Amino acid sequence: MNTGELTDLGQQLRVDSVRAAAAAGSGHPTSSMSAADLMAVLLARHLRYDFDRPAHPGNDRFVLSKGHASPLLYSAYKAAGAIDDEELLTFRKLGSRLEGHPTPQRLPWVETATGSLGQGLPVGVGIALAGKRLDRTGYRVWVLCGDSELAEGSVWEAAEHAGYEHLDNLTVVVDVNRLGQRGPTRHGHDLDAYARRFQAFDWHTIEVDGHDVDAIDRAYGEAASTKGQPTAILARTLKGKGVEGVQDREGLHGKPLPEADEAIAELGGPRDIRVRVQEPPAARMLHSVHTGNFDLPTWDKGEEVATRNAFGQALAALGTGRGDIVALDGEVGDSTRAEFFAKEHPDRYFECYIAEQQLVASAVGLAARGWVPYAATFAAFLTRAYDFVRMASVSGAGINLVGSHAGVAIGEDGPSQMGLEDLAMMRAVHGSTVLYPCDANQTARLVGAMAGLEGVRYLRTSRGESPVIYGPDEDFPVGGSKVLRSSDSDRLTLVAAGVTVHEALAAADALEREGIRARVIDLYSVKPVDRAALRKAAEETGCLVTVEDHHPEGGIGDAVLDAFGDGRPVPRLVRLAVRSMPGSASPDEQLHAAGIDAESIAAAGRLLVEEAVVP
Amino acid sequence: MNTGELTDLGQQLRVDSVRAAAAAGSGHPTSSMSAADLMAVLLARHLRYDFDRPAHPGNDRFVLSKGHASPLLYSAYKAAGAIDDEELLTFRKLGSRLEGHPTPQRLPWVETATGSLGQGLPVGVGIALAGKRLDRTGYRVWVLCGDSELAEGSVWEAAEHAGYEHLDNLTVVVDVNRLGQRGPTRHGHDLDAYARRFQAFDWHTIEVDGHDVDAIDRAYGEAASTKGQPTAILARTLKGKGVEGVQDREGLHGKPLPEADEAIAELGGPRDIRVRVQEPPAARMLHSVHTGNFDLPTWDKGEEVATRNAFGQALAALGTGRGDIVALDGEVGDSTRAEFFAKEHPDRYFECYIAEQQLVASAVGLAARGWVPYAATFAAFLTRAYDFVRMASVSGAGINLVGSHAGVAIGEDGPSQMGLEDLAMMRAVHGSTVLYPCDANQTARLVGAMAGLEGVRYLRTSRGESPVIYGPDEDFPVGGSKVLRSSDSDRLTLVAAGVTVHEALAAADALEREGIRARVIDLYSVKPVDRAALRKAAEETGCLVTVEDHHPEGGIGDAVLDAFGDGRPVPRLVRLAVRSMPGSASPDEQLHAAGIDAESIAAAGRLLVEEAVVP
Repeated sequence: MNTGELTDLGQQLRVDSVRAAAAAGSGHPTSSMSAADLMAVLLARHLRYDFDRPAHPGNDRFVLSKGHASPLLYSAYKAAGAIDDEELLTFRKLGSRLEGHPTPQRLPWVETATGSLGQGLPVGVGIALAGKRLDRTGYRVWVLCGDSELAEGSVWEAAEHAGYEHLDNLTVVVDVNRLGQRGPTRHGHDLDAYARRFQAFDWHTIEVDGHDVDAIDRAYGEAASTKGQPTAILARTLKGKGVEGVQDREGLHGKPLPEADEAIAELGGPRDIRVRVQEPPAARMLHSVHTGNFDLPTWDKGEEVATRNAFGQALAALGTGRGDIVALDGEVGDSTRAEFFAKEHPDRYFECYIAEQQLVASAVGLAARGWVPYAATFAAFLTRAYDFVRMASVSGAGINLVGSHAGVAIGEDGPSQMGLEDLAMMRAVHGSTVLYPCDANQTARLVGAMAGLEGVRYLRTSRGESPVIYGPDEDFPVGGSKVLRSSDSDRLTLVAAGVTVHEALAAADALEREGIRARVIDLYSVKPVDRAALRKAAEETGCLVTVEDHHPEGGIGDAVLDAFGDGRPVPRLVRLAVRSMPGSASPDEQLHAAGIDAESIAAAGRLLVEEAVVP
Repeated sequence: MNTGELTDLGQQLRVDSVRAAAAAGSGHPTSSMSAADLMAVLLARHLRYDFDRPAHPGNDRFVLSKGHASPLLYSAYKAAGAIDDEELLTFRKLGSRLEGHPTPQRLPWVETATGSLGQGLPVGVGIALAGKRLDRTGYRVWVLCGDSELAEGSVWEAAEHAGYEHLDNLTVVVDVNRLGQRGPTRHGHDLDAYARRFQAFDWHTIEVDGHDVDAIDRAYGEAASTKGQPTAILARTLKGKGVEGVQDREGLHGKPLPEADEAIAELGGPRDIRVRVQEPPAARMLHSVHTGNFDLPTWDKGEEVATRNAFGQALAALGTGRGDIVALDGEVGDSTRAEFFAKEHPDRYFECYIAEQQLVASAVGLAARGWVPYAATFAAFLTRAYDFVRMASVSGAGINLVGSHAGVAIGEDGPSQMGLEDLAMMRAVHGSTVLYPCDANQTARLVGAMAGLEGVRYLRTSRGESPVIYGPDEDFPVGGSKVLRSSDSDRLTLVAAGVTVHEALAAADALEREGIRARVIDLYSVKPVDRAALRKAAEETGCLVTVEDHHPEGGIGDAVLDAFGDGRPVPRLVRLAVRSMPGSASPDEQLHAAGIDAESIAAAGRLLVEEAVVP
């Protein structure tokens, strides 16, 4: 395409963006119009992509970080022949694939769900890491960002990561239209302000007029040929470009154009330019899945092993058996034991330093390219990345997250290091799996099982050692539980997971000495929860005590009640959890102070079987 | 103090750090030793602080962002005479004020809890904003960071904010000891790499030998006299400085020194230098709390008003009545309606742009200085700041967070913009309050009530309009609820909040037409929850339907069950919530698709009273 044709294509993308938003009665046409020329040149001259084969290993990868500019993306799909005009006009309607913000759950050409700003570049870095270090099929990653979203720290985590890793297969194009949602951005059209920042993080930068198609073309060419550095193209644009009444004006973010028909006429009317997108080069995926020749580690009953150690060993073994397993660390691999994987599989280990948003985003990017990532840090610090976990679920990304140092049981380090909200956070994620093992053999099995699940999977591990209570051949299906104590005369059920399983067992022993038989359930699968076992226990024993090393909200107590939310009779129950703010103390002191140790469990159980209300 | 004395003081801080960690059997002496000279010079020559009067408005403010170096902080407190040696050696023990990571809940000289890296600078920016724009008593803010934590994006959000706001009352001192937890940092001793980054964000930078007390002294002087820019001092240091066996060595992070006695001898043995810290200048707080002459806005029953609008109007009115109210925006003030406050009180409005971590951190910093902050963004995007919310709770910070655009009811924008995990996230925070109003008058009252609460307060608002159902004089105590329908023959209770209150009312009407009387409870106070009303409803009606525009985990259904976790009989119940991943659709279509509209509620209620299990 020549200059005139590219310019025409940009106008077509604008017209179609205006039309889609007008048909929907909502959406972001002005944010689409500013980036239309940037998109036109990319689509027609630089992107190498087979829309009929989105899984083609040689395809370039495009991420629309400014996801609200979805009309532009869908207009580009139409120009590429991937969707037709009729579908374009279903934008934002019930059942349409063309959502307000793009998601790979609906559209095969979308790499990752966007709409929470500042996430597209971090995920793009993850994809670029896959391309550079693992896939090596030569694809480029193109990320189109807004200027407003450069205020997000996650963008600079990503910039730091990409610069340090010399990701020259990555180009970010910043649509500097100077207007955010509620008014001007911090830096307006000061392209240099952005360039200075990217340069400081060791990026190559190019400043360009974002409406000059030839200049854009040269910038893309320069980016593609720059070696050893990622490139940021800072493009000066106008929001609403091409329609006098809205161009460069405030107060028009996220609104259909007031006079759509006139605007379309002003843009030269509808066109029907069809772009022949460049074919990707022939390529094949390098990661082979070999599943032979590996055994998960096992331990003998009675050994004292921290579940974080079992995780590290199991992951290393899994990595030996499966070539598609990768691991990511947030600069605490010696604590989480992810470093066990690093020692055996350094080529598939990604050090993300203390940057949990990039840790999770890299996992999402790697998963988008077919890898099976395990990202580990302290459970407490996964809270840093909650928006990324939430969006991973919107993407349908298959990622494994591992949070160590759960709960007050870590001891002296105090509350800043204690995962006490992690179960609530992870359970509330749509389609998530939440696992919390209590011994080494169970941990290893669950680490293996996680790899085959869908969506966001979370494993909670403990810092301290605990006795191995299961044999090496025991099976732990996801969604199951283990009944550790049971008799015909059980008068109550203690439901625990992780560190509290051992406390519950001790409590059951104490109660038994008093003549009170207690069933003990190890609820290692917190979500999905074993409804059948819980209902059976409720029917047979009448009442439950739940006990968890977590705040009372959203954790194991709530998970148990999930089995009784369909109108059936609900057992009486007492919920033991961490209800005060912990300080520094030894692990045993912590469990006692929180009222989740064996003594507290036994006391609660005693009152409950007496049908007393527990204070 | 002269050079020799300052050097001696540095050694004393090292010795005391080693001693404290040795007594505890855990802790981070090596990370304390690298920064000991930096701390010595600050304490003896630059900090203006009255340890007897930590609330003195003229006090400088010091934040130990690398909170794990708490032995250094406590050793400095000892040198300043704030604690004695006996207390120093209680470090990390049960009941001690000297926790593994410092928190203002225990110690009056601590501004904010640290221990989650990358948070000290953002909170320091919040304090510096208070100093510069509100307090104006001339205090300086000193933040001591580690080098590892500069990988956190939140640090660069903070750097961007501080540079843009010309916070020349802020100095960050980076202890570049080149070693993180598991090994070398990305940039090692390359001070220039860090300087380039800060400069790009418009900071003044100084590179210095962090063990040369005279050079440090000059750097602090230069920082204090630099106008128009914040200053970053990049200090080259050695981890474990002063003890040959550990100095600059890997694998010694977070461990007491192996041979503490020998190390202490090598450092010259214990000293008892007492520092006379400079007095702060006379100053008084400027923010006066005037509570007269303001009325919260009211609306007539039947009006259609979005609760986000009511929030904005109420906050603006509250700001008129109280001079200590401030508001913060994440560049969506036109959507959250925080901009209503901006128009009336621009001097107390803080635009944080799209940087939710800095949004919450600024609120924490402002609260530390006695202001009452309301920080607003979309409920979905508060997930971005969860670690900051969690740490605010560890700090005991009194902050108000307001999340708009809750749930599927926002309609077409799709799941990336929908707050569907926010109730779970906020409920799980220790000591939090979670409020979710359904009409404008209720919203206004709750906005007012929030200001007087402790800890983290969260208000959830809705995008769409809803009818005003309460009169302007109705009272809404926190921890209360409203019974909207009630009779002696109620056969079930519908428990709802926010948008689902209106659906529940319609469902009750529909059920009544079939001869089934339903009680309706508006559970506007999700935490603390109105246990008495729920228990009464359970006793009187036998069964409950909970309905929420939120994922099923951690929200209103779980809050309701919190009233029955003490062993008392639990009512049968059905929990309606958003169980599938929404797409784009109109608000009504969304409620229907999620099964939380009036029709779905009525259907569930019908089955429940028939004692059927609800599919």
